Amino acid sequence: LAERVAGRRSQLALGLDPDPARLWPEALAAADATGEPAERAASAVVAHCRALIDAAGGACVAAKLQLACFERLGAPGWEALETVAAHTREAGLLVLADGKRGDVPVTAAAYGEALVGGTSTPFGDVPGLRADAFTANPLLGADALAPLVTAARAAGAGVFVLVRTSNPGAAEFQDLPTGAGAAPAPLWERIAAQVAALGDGGEGLSDIGAVVGATAPEHLPRMRELMPRAIFLLPGVGAQGGRVEDLAPAFAPAASAALITISRGIALAHERDDGEPAEAARAEAERLRDAVWAISGGV
Amino acid sequence: LAERVAGRRSQLALGLDPDPARLWPEALAAADATGEPAERAASAVVAHCRALIDAAGGACVAAKLQLACFERLGAPGWEALETVAAHTREAGLLVLADGKRGDVPVTAAAYGEALVGGTSTPFGDVPGLRADAFTANPLLGADALAPLVTAARAAGAGVFVLVRTSNPGAAEFQDLPTGAGAAPAPLWERIAAQVAALGDGGEGLSDIGAVVGATAPEHLPRMRELMPRAIFLLPGVGAQGGRVEDLAPAFAPAASAALITISRGIALAHERDDGEPAEAARAEAERLRDAVWAISGGV
Repeated sequence: LAERVAGRRSQLALGLDPDPARLWPEALAAADATGEPAERAASAVVAHCRALIDAAGGACVAAKLQLACFERLGAPGWEALETVAAHTREAGLLVLADGKRGDVPVTAAAYGEALVGGTSTPFGDVPGLRADAFTANPLLGADALAPLVTAARAAGAGVFVLVRTSNPGAAEFQDLPTGAGAAPAPLWERIAAQVAALGDGGEGLSDIGAVVGATAPEHLPRMRELMPRAIFLLPGVGAQGGRVEDLAPAFAPAASAALITISRGIALAHERDDGEPAEAARAEAERLRDAVWAISGGV
Repeated sequence: LAERVAGRRSQLALGLDPDPARLWPEALAAADATGEPAERAASAVVAHCRALIDAAGGACVAAKLQLACFERLGAPGWEALETVAAHTREAGLLVLADGKRGDVPVTAAAYGEALVGGTSTPFGDVPGLRADAFTANPLLGADALAPLVTAARAAGAGVFVLVRTSNPGAAEFQDLPTGAGAAPAPLWERIAAQVAALGDGGEGLSDIGAVVGATAPEHLPRMRELMPRAIFLLPGVGAQGGRVEDLAPAFAPAASAALITISRGIALAHERDDGEPAEAARAEAERLRDAVWAISGGV
């Protein structure tokens, strides 16, 4: 990651959250002309994501694929997900699978097979999505995260654990003071300590990162204290109200210590500027890339 | 649900967690003879689940489909999921989609479309999985649960929110004492209060239920106090160590106030008894059905 960040002078992860009702016109035009609605919509989603990657990907180091947006199109949607992941790789971008999975250990192992590993079957091995990293929900505890970490490590991939999310309701449980006695700490600090403990124990940045909403930047210095080696994945800039200029503390250890994900801000840039979608997306991605690079201490 | 429970004198949810390496021999024999490994494995998974439903479904009121086990086979796996869901419905069983989804509101809405609703596209509407209920992870808070509840209610479906899970590590975060001051409560009690608040406000059982591990039955009386109208979905009996005879408090409000999910205990019953898989599954499901009915107060 550090090499890619330095080479592209970018810490942007392009969010791919395709909404079939808001695809670019060129994607609708490129969709399959016949077939079931799910198949036609999935082909349009592929065309949209491909055009978005081609337009804005040059200003990014990764793409974050939102699994929900593909799953809602059923099997054709999952096929579109695989096709978009392949195109992401071909464009030289890391594939981040954003599904926020979390389950009891035996099931967590199955998610690991789906996202970064593969499944042994009597008919031969079935490869998974081959993501470079994926997001995980820690509510079930360390034993449920362990199979995800094991699967990621075996594949040379990373895990981003939800520590504090970007939605307005995140405070409800994640900010609850926990721990009896004199030193209560919000739940997210307990999770952050777990993220640090799950790390690979090496030097430099860890393979276990943290999802940290850009909407509550006041927590970033404490997050860095608790997770000095974690890569932060920061959603919430733009549509959700987070501002790039508040995020400098995330980059304290290194210019590659955080990735900022932008979805609607880039894909729908043309709706604000009344321009051509691809041109508007490229311009906005380049503007954001430079703004992030400037506050990251990258040289 | 109450009618189905009374009609079948059963509160069992048949867990469908197909592992391609442990399918019944008859399913392997029925698999597609040609095609990619994923397609052949998916056809074997369908045959396995169909045989399991046909053998044990008569002793159950629902089937719980573990999404991870299908997703790991990619697009053919998702198609298998839809086929198995259809067969579940044909067998007169409720379809419980177990994916433990949870995400920021805009993405939660997409999961709602995938699981119980449908997606509007320029090519026509794409139906989702049409589950009768699904599991959800509450870590992101009430605003992130709201779109899932809205989608479920629009479809006449239910939501089971994770309150306390069945894995050994569940205690790590879910049992943390929370709240400053004189009256700390474990995190799961805060979540339980949220489940009660999300309920439909009617009388009788609510459309918002709770996932409550059968491995910590000592919490059941307090759970019932906090969530008097929630249907409890109880995993963890059998392979994970939970015992039917400890679960009576879950049924305090009504014989239909809880469902007990059994996966490996039924599907792999033949490995213990050295018998024919379908016969062993049927016998074990009937034995468990009767044992649960006896402690549930059903008449």
